[in-house]
Amino acid sequence: MEGSHWLSMKKVLLELSKRGHEIVVIAPDNTLLIDSSGVYELKTYPMPLMKEVIEEHIHSFTSKSFSQEPFLVRFWRLLVEYRQSGAIFHASCKSLLYNQELMKYIGDNHFDALLTDPVSPCGQIIALHFSIPSIFFLRLVPCAFEVRAAQGPDPPSYVPRMFSENTDHMTFSERVKNFLIALSESFICSIAYSPFEELASELLQKPMTMTELLSHGSIWLRRIDFVFEYPMPVMPNMVFIGGIHCGEKKKPLSQEFEAMVNASGEHGIVVFSLGSMVSEIPMKKAMEIAEALGTVPQTVFWRYTGKAPPNLPSNVKLVKWLPQNDLLAHPKTRAFITHGGSHGVYEGICNAVPMVLMPLFGDQMDNAKRVESRGAGLTLNILEMTSNDISTALKAVINEKKYKENIQRLSDLHLDRPIHPLDLAVHWVEFVMRHKGAPHLRPAAHDLNWVQYHSLDVIAFLAAVTLLSLFISFKCCLCCCRRWVAGTPQGFIYLPPPPDAPGTWTLLP
Amino acid sequence: MEGSHWLSMKKVLLELSKRGHEIVVIAPDNTLLIDSSGVYELKTYPMPLMKEVIEEHIHSFTSKSFSQEPFLVRFWRLLVEYRQSGAIFHASCKSLLYNQELMKYIGDNHFDALLTDPVSPCGQIIALHFSIPSIFFLRLVPCAFEVRAAQGPDPPSYVPRMFSENTDHMTFSERVKNFLIALSESFICSIAYSPFEELASELLQKPMTMTELLSHGSIWLRRIDFVFEYPMPVMPNMVFIGGIHCGEKKKPLSQEFEAMVNASGEHGIVVFSLGSMVSEIPMKKAMEIAEALGTVPQTVFWRYTGKAPPNLPSNVKLVKWLPQNDLLAHPKTRAFITHGGSHGVYEGICNAVPMVLMPLFGDQMDNAKRVESRGAGLTLNILEMTSNDISTALKAVINEKKYKENIQRLSDLHLDRPIHPLDLAVHWVEFVMRHKGAPHLRPAAHDLNWVQYHSLDVIAFLAAVTLLSLFISFKCCLCCCRRWVAGTPQGFIYLPPPPDAPGTWTLLP
Repeated sequence: MEGSHWLSMKKVLLELSKRGHEIVVIAPDNTLLIDSSGVYELKTYPMPLMKEVIEEHIHSFTSKSFSQEPFLVRFWRLLVEYRQSGAIFHASCKSLLYNQELMKYIGDNHFDALLTDPVSPCGQIIALHFSIPSIFFLRLVPCAFEVRAAQGPDPPSYVPRMFSENTDHMTFSERVKNFLIALSESFICSIAYSPFEELASELLQKPMTMTELLSHGSIWLRRIDFVFEYPMPVMPNMVFIGGIHCGEKKKPLSQEFEAMVNASGEHGIVVFSLGSMVSEIPMKKAMEIAEALGTVPQTVFWRYTGKAPPNLPSNVKLVKWLPQNDLLAHPKTRAFITHGGSHGVYEGICNAVPMVLMPLFGDQMDNAKRVESRGAGLTLNILEMTSNDISTALKAVINEKKYKENIQRLSDLHLDRPIHPLDLAVHWVEFVMRHKGAPHLRPAAHDLNWVQYHSLDVIAFLAAVTLLSLFISFKCCLCCCRRWVAGTPQGFIYLPPPPDAPGTWTLLP
Repeated sequence: MEGSHWLSMKKVLLELSKRGHEIVVIAPDNTLLIDSSGVYELKTYPMPLMKEVIEEHIHSFTSKSFSQEPFLVRFWRLLVEYRQSGAIFHASCKSLLYNQELMKYIGDNHFDALLTDPVSPCGQIIALHFSIPSIFFLRLVPCAFEVRAAQGPDPPSYVPRMFSENTDHMTFSERVKNFLIALSESFICSIAYSPFEELASELLQKPMTMTELLSHGSIWLRRIDFVFEYPMPVMPNMVFIGGIHCGEKKKPLSQEFEAMVNASGEHGIVVFSLGSMVSEIPMKKAMEIAEALGTVPQTVFWRYTGKAPPNLPSNVKLVKWLPQNDLLAHPKTRAFITHGGSHGVYEGICNAVPMVLMPLFGDQMDNAKRVESRGAGLTLNILEMTSNDISTALKAVINEKKYKENIQRLSDLHLDRPIHPLDLAVHWVEFVMRHKGAPHLRPAAHDLNWVQYHSLDVIAFLAAVTLLSLFISFKCCLCCCRRWVAGTPQGFIYLPPPPDAPGTWTLLP
């Protein structure tokens, strides 16, 4: 996986390398962020799509988030974009699986473990093909595959679905919405992931579903923490490493940034970034944002690579790049304006900085909802927000004590852990290497089908036995009654003996 | 809780005390193992039952396990014994809750946290009454209350029920048995625990069920590890500390034991204990066991407080007490004959000693089944086993390589952990103290009723909407058809236009 997914996985690789492990990173030759390094060997394979095509796709994908079109049009376009993303992953996977030289290299080298992000199941196909125990490194997989494949239950009554924007406390109508999304997930995702299933079935020479494929992961390293996620059932082979990229010893800021931060005076600074995937936003929106940022006394560091809006106020510093985590860790930081990507949100929580969230796509709306439901920030609708809305929200999270108190509480809970998530992740990777997997953590549910898992066959059997017993009892009774009636002469009935004089029944006309 | 439950909890108290916490232990004045100590203050309350009565109850309880009576008689007696145990816990709880002096002391001292074993829910009643955040320390609660109260799902299709002696891979008939036990649990346990529910409802002045009571525990410290338990869904507020009492730095054996162990020569030793609750076994059984022990070349250390069987072979050393964990850790130890109490089994796993299991009561049959299903030991039926059976089983686990290999594998997996269970337990106790509980780990499922949790209301609503839509569509169609038919003169029908000449319909006689 690319982007922020890769950046946090790289931290684990650096730590594994420090402990003396040899690491090979396999990636397409047109990667965006996956770079060569002294700590691992980078093996690339040619990919049919040009780097520019992928960058153009990402650009078009993100710019759609700002388009003011009717909901259905946007929804449809989004679906098309998602399909295109899927096609890119699929093309990349196919290039790898059919690259004989690289596949031979993997097969010959008898790796101890394979670390992969299962959002693209390509790594797991290779793991199964070469019988390499695999460790998954992820926050989530669309359609809750990470839950289904690990046999974890996730009742739609209180586990909010992706894209639902529900919290874990839902009204009846929200539960209906959540249930319908859950129902549609398996349908939508079997379409989305079917090309991968075909690839897997072809290579592994047996029918393979996405669930079956991912069910063979030894350990799920999940970048989540329950200060941010809602508590739900989990499985013993899931290890929670949310906040893995934060909470270590802070690097000092560069002289340039340190000077700018110190110049902000008593009001401090605001950090503003919509993530590395958003290079440009429409000028009208940029001007509205700029106008709003001028209304606060704080110095605002705005990471933005697009054209500077002409009304940029003097307190806003436009930068092409900023050391986000180090700036958030600075005691002068008062607020964080973010698109709500999970990495940014965890950095906000880790450093206890209240947030204004402008979610754009993917899981960002859900992330924003989570932060807002914890009282640690405010969410704005990027399409509908006015300059005034932005200004009001920003002033609120800076000046109203409750936001700082709430994020501080979340931060305290988040950082109070018996072992750093990075050490935990490294331990479990090494565990899988040492023991060739973790089969003792694999639930027996994998060997049951849907009917068996839900005990429907047992219920049907017990119901049948009960009904049969009732039927036989009834028939017996009926038979006895008939015999008894048959033994009574016509025109007579049997009368029971009186209670004070027990004896035989009396035949009465 | 008494016995081994207390002994492993005490380890946590010692560690908490080392870290500077002040600890008060509250116990009835007739305790068996709960003793005074410099590291905590022991507060006792008078209990109506004499220590001797309780000891007599335990004695009669364990001796029942050896009685050769028909199954139904034994089952009935066991139920009676369990009810008596419940009555003792209940009497103890009542004495505490109505001890005004002690209750005032608890209320006045504003404790930061309450550590309790929820098998007796008395501690949790006090925690709720004084709003003290509570931490549960347990392996399990009868009737799977620990799962239900934490809102953890436990599908009976692969999660074996207590007393079922099933593994996680069940045949159809085993699944039927498991399902029926699961079904009966809520019924049996609501009877067993109803006296506590009455006590709780009275003190807390609102209706209280056992599930509701335990649902307020902040953290569940569970003495389980998945090398021994079967993997199943768990909840985020469950912390697994199985093996907490093992794996630390070993104490050296006393000179007396060290000398005896060394004298065993190349054959090594066998450790044999049926637990501290079994003081005596029937002489016939003891003689059979003694005879079997004479058939192996190993020196057998038999912890036994009853009358020595007259046929005791020379290789058997009868002792009133033995340092079980330290002996098991000795490299000369070849096998462990145990009743299958969870503490002993974890010590066996921790020290990689293959086991012969003679389960007596409670969860011991299930524990034995677990060890056997992992290939790390053999189980004997204490009632039916002959001298020959014991000898065969003992020789097998000592001489057949697979038992040692399997227990070694379990041991390696068990000991390969990122943090020692004792440190983990102490961390979470301190976590609850620092943050006044762990409300962020409480699942929203607690706020749903059974119908809502299973989305039955949502399903009913959606079914109703679907049926209504179908009905309306059908009615509309019917209406249209009728109009159309009504517009046709009697004796005529409408004929559609031919496909090659589209146009209006034709009226035909």
